[in-house]
Amino acid sequence: MKITILVGSSRKGGNSELLADFVVQDIEHEKVYIKDLYIRPIVDLRHTRNGFQAVNDDYDRLVEAIMKSDVLIFATPIYWYSMSSLMKNMIDRLSQAIRDEKYPNLREHLKTIRAIVVVVGGDDPRIKGLPLIQQFQYTFDFLNMPFSSYIIGEANQPEEILKDSRALLQAAWLNEKLKSELYAEKE
Amino acid sequence: MKITILVGSSRKGGNSELLADFVVQDIEHEKVYIKDLYIRPIVDLRHTRNGFQAVNDDYDRLVEAIMKSDVLIFATPIYWYSMSSLMKNMIDRLSQAIRDEKYPNLREHLKTIRAIVVVVGGDDPRIKGLPLIQQFQYTFDFLNMPFSSYIIGEANQPEEILKDSRALLQAAWLNEKLKSELYAEKE
Amino acid sequence: MKITILVGSSRKGGNSELLADFVVQDIEHEKVYIKDLYIRPIVDLRHTRNGFQAVNDDYDRLVEAIMKSDVLIFATPIYWYSMSSLMKNMIDRLSQAIRDEKYPNLREHLKTIRAIVVVVGGDDPRIKGLPLIQQFQYTFDFLNMPFSSYIIGEANQPEEILKDSRALLQAAWLNEKLKSELYAEKE
Amino acid sequence: MKITILVGSSRKGGNSELLADFVVQDIEHEKVYIKDLYIRPIVDLRHTRNGFQAVNDDYDRLVEAIMKSDVLIFATPIYWYSMSSLMKNMIDRLSQAIRDEKYPNLREHLKTIRAIVVVVGGDDPRIKGLPLIQQFQYTFDFLNMPFSSYIIGEANQPEEILKDSRALLQAAWLNEKLKSELYAEKE
Repeated sequence: MKITILVGSSRKGGNSELLADFVVQDIEHEKVYIKDLYIRPIVDLRHTRNGFQAVNDDYDRLVEAIMKSDVLIFATPIYWYSMSSLMKNMIDRLSQAIRDEKYPNLREHLKTIRAIVVVVGGDDPRIKGLPLIQQFQYTFDFLNMPFSSYIIGEANQPEEILKDSRALLQAAWLNEKLKSELYAEKE
Repeated sequence: MKITILVGSSRKGGNSELLADFVVQDIEHEKVYIKDLYIRPIVDLRHTRNGFQAVNDDYDRLVEAIMKSDVLIFATPIYWYSMSSLMKNMIDRLSQAIRDEKYPNLREHLKTIRAIVVVVGGDDPRIKGLPLIQQFQYTFDFLNMPFSSYIIGEANQPEEILKDSRALLQAAWLNEKLKSELYAEKE
Repeated sequence: MKITILVGSSRKGGNSELLADFVVQDIEHEKVYIKDLYIRPIVDLRHTRNGFQAVNDDYDRLVEAIMKSDVLIFATPIYWYSMSSLMKNMIDRLSQAIRDEKYPNLREHLKTIRAIVVVVGGDDPRIKGLPLIQQFQYTFDFLNMPFSSYIIGEANQPEEILKDSRALLQAAWLNEKLKSELYAEKE
Repeated sequence: MKITILVGSSRKGGNSELLADFVVQDIEHEKVYIKDLYIRPIVDLRHTRNGFQAVNDDYDRLVEAIMKSDVLIFATPIYWYSMSSLMKNMIDRLSQAIRDEKYPNLREHLKTIRAIVVVVGGDDPRIKGLPLIQQFQYTFDFLNMPFSSYIIGEANQPEEILKDSRALLQAAWLNEKLKSELYAEKE
């Protein structure tokens, strides 16, 4: 079971990344910092004669990471009650990628991935973050990706998530669950 | 009453822009194509010693357009059940802009602007677009911007919005409302 | 095409009923005033040995009305951001009715009914009524009932809905749509 | 700190009640079984000459329980993606109660109560129960009642909630929190 965290924050060690770290504590995993990839915004050419055009950027690296994964953790700060634009930019490009001959197996592979969402916000996120959770649900439904679980944390200052005992507890619970699955797998 | 449309699509003449055009038919207005501006993703430095750093991009032009406006129309396609990453990128940078000494009156001015949201999607948008409307509401609440109204249209193919009679009717209604306000203003 | 309005208000001629009247103007239809029916709250006995028990109340009349209908209009005031308890009481009992041998064809028939939702509230209903719309969606999804459309009106005082030009316009649009379908049917 | 659980289920010992029991484990509390009270549906007479009429039922007992409480736990099964009609019926009547001269201090007292929501559903409740959480939020906002926290559990069969380790963990967390507050109070 390979686990990849997609880190949507603009800074390393942000609260949502820290919370995701608890989820994978003592479990092998990889991280993709979206901020370190050069990903161009999607240009919607679905309906033009030639369709989408090849884009020269780092999206291949992202798709490679996804293709290797069994579990994807979407870790993003809540900016303006939604995911960061860095993460949204990556997701928007999926519209092109799932139709791209370069990635013939992407769409099928996505159906096998379990999605976990870890978000942290500062303004009443357990209420005002709920539309974001619903959007993830619609997105995973569209892709036929099982939506495994989500954790909403609350923090404003750097590392403040460490004080959100409720979120940490849920991360620990999820960590246990992943470990027991890994263990069962090895049997 | 100055009206500005913020166009969030990656292509000119997209469905959401067309629908917004009906809202401002025969009314003076300006358009800002976000796709034509170079806007860097926000780097969250709120909590560092020096705070946000000056960014050398086109955000000034956006703020200028906002500062001149009494009505802002956020016109965006629904990509993955949310606004386009182009528009999200612009909104994320607001966190910096409203704290920026370069724009001392931005925050106050935003409180006087009426916001209109015009979104068009292809996958059951009148249901699956609702979380996006809620996020706009939370955003405008945070900024104390009155949320005037929203229109959700349905379209997949280019110009297909012209067949969504329900959305067009709502755009016509809003157009009449804006015109009567403009007329009252000139009295 | 038989149309039935399920009226969820506690008073006759309430705003949501008036708005639904515009939807069916000049179209034959029936009305069921839920307030005039004696419907007992559901007692959840799904998991007991004997299952649900026969209930001696007016639910049969409701099921009869549903079985005759091709279009159901759920017209309810928004009380506390949700449907009236009168309507909720009726819907809760569906859990029993769709399992009841007395109504062997109910479940299949529901799949053929188109649902229309007409709600009116006084506290920012076009935003704060959205969770209610989402709940109707989930409910209709569960029943495999096509969710045709919804209208959200705003009113506090009796008959104030008559001033909500936007809601009236949508009702008129829906009225035209239903009429043209009826016309096509008769051809 | 007086804690009252409002039990919205139609059966004693239902899953939502069991989950609420974990929240108050080893803490003094009271329970009100709404199913055992005779509460008439609201008749909306806000706008009639004489206003609301006195209702001869058990609502007084409910108001008494509320007036004695510092913490209210709303425990309800999720029926059709919303609260039970039993609970909705009780909440709808609040519209009358907060305007009723019989209860002159109710409205003020509600502002001092902390609300906890405990809901259990069988059909993907952590996603499909979110609109219900939003409605509680709007309701508490209207009443200026602080919304302390919510727990969403998943269960279908009786007592199946005992297997939802994630919900139980959150109940235990909340239990600890309440205990430490009680302890601090006694100091």
